[in-house]
Amino acid sequence: MSGPLVRALLFDVFGTLVDWRTSIARDLSAFGARRSLSCDWIGLVDAWRGEYVPAMDRVRRGELPWRNLDALHASSLDELLPRFGLAELDADDRAWMVRRWHALDPWPDVRAGLERLRARHVLGTLSNGNVALLVDLCRNADLRFDAIFSAEIFRRYKPDPQTYLGAAALLGCEPHEVMLVAAHNDDLGAARAQGLRTAFVARPAEYGPHQRKDFAADVGVDVAARDLGELADAF
Amino acid sequence: MSGPLVRALLFDVFGTLVDWRTSIARDLSAFGARRSLSCDWIGLVDAWRGEYVPAMDRVRRGELPWRNLDALHASSLDELLPRFGLAELDADDRAWMVRRWHALDPWPDVRAGLERLRARHVLGTLSNGNVALLVDLCRNADLRFDAIFSAEIFRRYKPDPQTYLGAAALLGCEPHEVMLVAAHNDDLGAARAQGLRTAFVARPAEYGPHQRKDFAADVGVDVAARDLGELADAF
Repeated sequence: MSGPLVRALLFDVFGTLVDWRTSIARDLSAFGARRSLSCDWIGLVDAWRGEYVPAMDRVRRGELPWRNLDALHASSLDELLPRFGLAELDADDRAWMVRRWHALDPWPDVRAGLERLRARHVLGTLSNGNVALLVDLCRNADLRFDAIFSAEIFRRYKPDPQTYLGAAALLGCEPHEVMLVAAHNDDLGAARAQGLRTAFVARPAEYGPHQRKDFAADVGVDVAARDLGELADAF
Repeated sequence: MSGPLVRALLFDVFGTLVDWRTSIARDLSAFGARRSLSCDWIGLVDAWRGEYVPAMDRVRRGELPWRNLDALHASSLDELLPRFGLAELDADDRAWMVRRWHALDPWPDVRAGLERLRARHVLGTLSNGNVALLVDLCRNADLRFDAIFSAEIFRRYKPDPQTYLGAAALLGCEPHEVMLVAAHNDDLGAARAQGLRTAFVARPAEYGPHQRKDFAADVGVDVAARDLGELADAF
């Protein structure tokens, strides 16, 4: 790392820090076993996540009024369940399923990597997850951040510029003093366009066999690392 | 503690968690000694803090556009320094003095009390301090919160209702599921009026010999405690 001082690191969460696919599939499979329900659970998880970007884009384009990620998860689940033969699940079951996104397993390098990085940098989330989701997720996984920044605070979803610039401003930082850490080139490219510095972390297993991109940085980044340990080494 | 479940505790910071008066007076006195400057340092601290509520009230009434607490601290310091014979201090010295509010000593019970309380509750700040100030303060004092809520996020200062209700909403909680912990009756009364639960913690030394109120709860509160350890005992 060369160049001006990086004062704060902002972390994308889903995929970058936590393995949502394995975590949710495991929880839903266990639920199915308890209820003797047969379903293509991993297919449901992939379809559910597949609704994520289109749902946020409807909010970003103004076709839907603001709603947070818990609400988007709930409405996309309602649409998907009949397709997976689960139309009869009641409201409590659906709410329980939506809350699975509040308790996702971190990748193995994350907890220790964050601790190392926090010694010298202010650490924040910068996620499209809502605040309550991120708070629960960090408590469940014992991840320590100095601040929780969420799209919900700005009522804008990434990659809208206001999210990156808003978090930097709340930290009292110039954009170039802040680095976004993410496993996704589109997120990193949008942050870089606003003047933030960028770190790519590879998560080639995020989408399991369906992963088609983000095996490596393909936008200009300040640092590329295999995991958070390697990122900490780079500073 | 009886009644419905308290899911989250929100903490006022200045006075409730940190001893701003002793901390700032010590830092400014040391600065004066290094520079061989003579000044009534504790008088300056008291006068500076005295400008706090009037300055926020000008913002709350709309007489000033939104500005965060660092900015209010900077402008009130600029007004006060000539009165204390320090008109010649340059911009770097003034910025350093403003940043003293980012590094205040917690009261002796705070760090351990928060750790105990965090085992069962989501913990957040709810302070008129700006986000960067609160992040620095918590890092310097090693205070662990799950979320940093600041007037700056809502662009409203306490006791405006939007601050209490806004923090509860971001936590996905009903107001009655959230408890404000504060050493100040006006803050607690305003939170209670919005349906939050309230805990008074006594800080009779906050204003030193000038303390005139807040020796005990004089608005209805759900719990009154001598310190955070006693508050943790109450749960």
